[in-house]
Amino acid sequence: MQRAAALVRRGCYPRTLGPWGRGQSSAAAEASAVLKVRPERSRRDRILTLESMNPQVKAVEYAVRGPIVLKAGEIELELQRGIKKPFTEVIRANIGDAQAMGQQPITFLRQVMALCTYPNLLDSPSFPEDAKKRARRILQACGGNSLGSYSASQGVNCIREDVAAYITRRDGGVPADPDNIYLTTGASDGISTILKILVSGGGKSRTGVMIPIPQYPLYSAVISELDAIQVNYYLDEDNCWALNVNELRRAVREAKEQCDPKVLCIINPGNPTGQVQSRKCIEDVIHFAWEEKLFLLADEVYQDNVYSPDCRFHSFKKVLYEMGPEYSSNVELASFHSTSKGYMGECGYRGGYMEVINLHPEIKGQLVKLLSVRLCPPVSGQAAMDIVVNPPVPGEESFEQFSRTHQMAPDMFYCMKLLEETGICVVPGSGFGQREGTYHFRMTILPPVEKLKTVLQKVKDFHIKFLEKYA
Amino acid sequence: MQRAAALVRRGCYPRTLGPWGRGQSSAAAEASAVLKVRPERSRRDRILTLESMNPQVKAVEYAVRGPIVLKAGEIELELQRGIKKPFTEVIRANIGDAQAMGQQPITFLRQVMALCTYPNLLDSPSFPEDAKKRARRILQACGGNSLGSYSASQGVNCIREDVAAYITRRDGGVPADPDNIYLTTGASDGISTILKILVSGGGKSRTGVMIPIPQYPLYSAVISELDAIQVNYYLDEDNCWALNVNELRRAVREAKEQCDPKVLCIINPGNPTGQVQSRKCIEDVIHFAWEEKLFLLADEVYQDNVYSPDCRFHSFKKVLYEMGPEYSSNVELASFHSTSKGYMGECGYRGGYMEVINLHPEIKGQLVKLLSVRLCPPVSGQAAMDIVVNPPVPGEESFEQFSRTHQMAPDMFYCMKLLEETGICVVPGSGFGQREGTYHFRMTILPPVEKLKTVLQKVKDFHIKFLEKYA
Repeated sequence: MQRAAALVRRGCYPRTLGPWGRGQSSAAAEASAVLKVRPERSRRDRILTLESMNPQVKAVEYAVRGPIVLKAGEIELELQRGIKKPFTEVIRANIGDAQAMGQQPITFLRQVMALCTYPNLLDSPSFPEDAKKRARRILQACGGNSLGSYSASQGVNCIREDVAAYITRRDGGVPADPDNIYLTTGASDGISTILKILVSGGGKSRTGVMIPIPQYPLYSAVISELDAIQVNYYLDEDNCWALNVNELRRAVREAKEQCDPKVLCIINPGNPTGQVQSRKCIEDVIHFAWEEKLFLLADEVYQDNVYSPDCRFHSFKKVLYEMGPEYSSNVELASFHSTSKGYMGECGYRGGYMEVINLHPEIKGQLVKLLSVRLCPPVSGQAAMDIVVNPPVPGEESFEQFSRTHQMAPDMFYCMKLLEETGICVVPGSGFGQREGTYHFRMTILPPVEKLKTVLQKVKDFHIKFLEKYA
Repeated sequence: MQRAAALVRRGCYPRTLGPWGRGQSSAAAEASAVLKVRPERSRRDRILTLESMNPQVKAVEYAVRGPIVLKAGEIELELQRGIKKPFTEVIRANIGDAQAMGQQPITFLRQVMALCTYPNLLDSPSFPEDAKKRARRILQACGGNSLGSYSASQGVNCIREDVAAYITRRDGGVPADPDNIYLTTGASDGISTILKILVSGGGKSRTGVMIPIPQYPLYSAVISELDAIQVNYYLDEDNCWALNVNELRRAVREAKEQCDPKVLCIINPGNPTGQVQSRKCIEDVIHFAWEEKLFLLADEVYQDNVYSPDCRFHSFKKVLYEMGPEYSSNVELASFHSTSKGYMGECGYRGGYMEVINLHPEIKGQLVKLLSVRLCPPVSGQAAMDIVVNPPVPGEESFEQFSRTHQMAPDMFYCMKLLEETGICVVPGSGFGQREGTYHFRMTILPPVEKLKTVLQKVKDFHIKFLEKYA
């Protein structure tokens, strides 16, 4: 049973109920029964049906946008029509869609994008010079200086250079080569493209793809589409969803009886777990991939979303290089990032990149060929990716506004921590105005005296600990 | 031999030479021989190689962006570095990329896009009100009123409504249902998605996909990726590349011996042939598809690129409806369009749509599920699609500028026809300035008298015929 759960051949999943499952077959049968008594309609059997369609596509399950999400859309329409419900709006917490939740886009990014879109604005005095400079640089790298031209299938050259420079900075100087950067239509596109190239073989030689459980359902969906073998390894819920290399060993050992495990997918920081892997854990994983001859896929789209002061993001690329040439010139790695996550949250632009390490030169040719069938990723998404990896820097006109928007003010941070750790809700001084460089909070003193004493004691204890930690 | 040519099982193609073919294997072998004498590098065998990779991807050929295009990129870099060649620039006529060739984007489209991108501009007096109205309408339909949010996987609702209204207008009132419209990442994405759902079976039951020869190489590439069977039907070069239904019959008859032909792909207007199918031809094709139980794929991305006054574009959808309910309620059809072609040429935005007819309701659910794995098409491309199907109309502020840019001025049309029909090259009066509503041409009278007589006689004959035809 353990193995059956850990290793599921696509197509053996139970069918889902609901809008795309077998649950509707009876309704369809009824409909065709009705048609039979009205032969003048002469409805013939459809060519494309659940029975005749691609069984691998039928087996795909996609939780993030499944029946619940379709139902949410229906309920929204009902609310719009005035139907009473015990709530007045649907809050879509099913997907990381920051701007749909009210997050405002970054001004600088949107300024550059607007300038690229409508270059007449380059003459407008209401746009800052640094945004204009960026827009000119991007447009100069586009065919006909236009976002409306196709780009190279691998992506616009100067944007790939900016991505490589970003990775080099992020990894403390470990070099990145623009030739190894491929711009993509969001991270999903890159992940499915590289998996498509990797999957081969039949029967017991069919490619096994190791994925964490819980996973982001893109992986199981693409594995199903490609008729590959999904090899599950379980994250340790009792240990904050950490990855345990012994569990990887168990999974690969059992998988080898039924397929050829060739790919190891890692999601770090975790989705949906939020777990941030330690440097030691990443080293262990890389050593394991080296030992077991596994191609590493590192989904690192949440690299800018690490909030705990106790955690730090380490890229697989950096750790790989720090482990020495035996690893850094042998382990094959593809790592993914996108415009959708981080502080930008530009999901709709579908921008992303992948960096490949130690990819065989012939395979790089194959990769470009495969990407070229879809011509190129959206050029507007590529431009957005450029700003994500290359935000305003000190000395540039837009830097101050940019940095103000995306650091939590110290008083806000203090109040947030106070609430999280003590349950006491006070208001940051910035809501009331305060002299620059000073920070306050405002609290009401309405609780009865005994309660107030307790409250103040808690605030005191918190304050001392806070200063110890962040002073 | 005939059958062997017409019906090629993927993977049996001869390997290509060049950057992604076997031609490099010997170089790779040399490289690994060198490594063997330097064991300290300890390069291990790669996991992902030409031998181990997905053989279906390896078999993909993609002519439009193949080795020639890579070479073109190299030559451009050489020219930039100052290397002398017998020419000073590479002219990329390999792909329909209008803006890369210098075509200017449509002002109205880019204004709406800039307003959507950076809504602060909605307060700017330098944008026309009709563009602002469009931008507000699109943004109101986006999550958080932002292009940065994911849209529904099928596409933004109001844009699908605009597409349906466009199709209804185009087809003289034949109704289109927004529920049957799916926005896509360019037409390529829609075509490969629907093919992915259609392909099934093994051995002699494997799905056969009929495609014209010559074809647009997306088709052969996707058929290869999906391990489907490519069934070639040949267009009649001696008859302006017309489609002959007898050739369809021959192809399907021979294909049935080796696979299950289930899909018929039509490219109209033709790519690369430019052939525009007559209404009669389309009727014949639809009847054939009905008879042979084939799912129709109508690639109609060049529907706005019909230049000959003798030809007219007829959509498969419209002809299907005009053939009566036996066809219109039975024949399964998917038709494709994009922002890339037509007069807009917005290739980089990767916008497109498909309309499906008679798709089984369960399959519609499967389609949405499959699209949802990639979350959504780029929202900026969806917005561009909206303006393509919904350009400014008379009475709107931007209409005059819009229509001026995209109808050929009468004098330009006259001179173009004169050149095409007589070989005489004169210049339209608009290049020199003329009173509004009047049209002129300018010709030099430098040829010798005898030649000039002939020339003037030809102009006279042309002029009389021109007035007969267009008066």
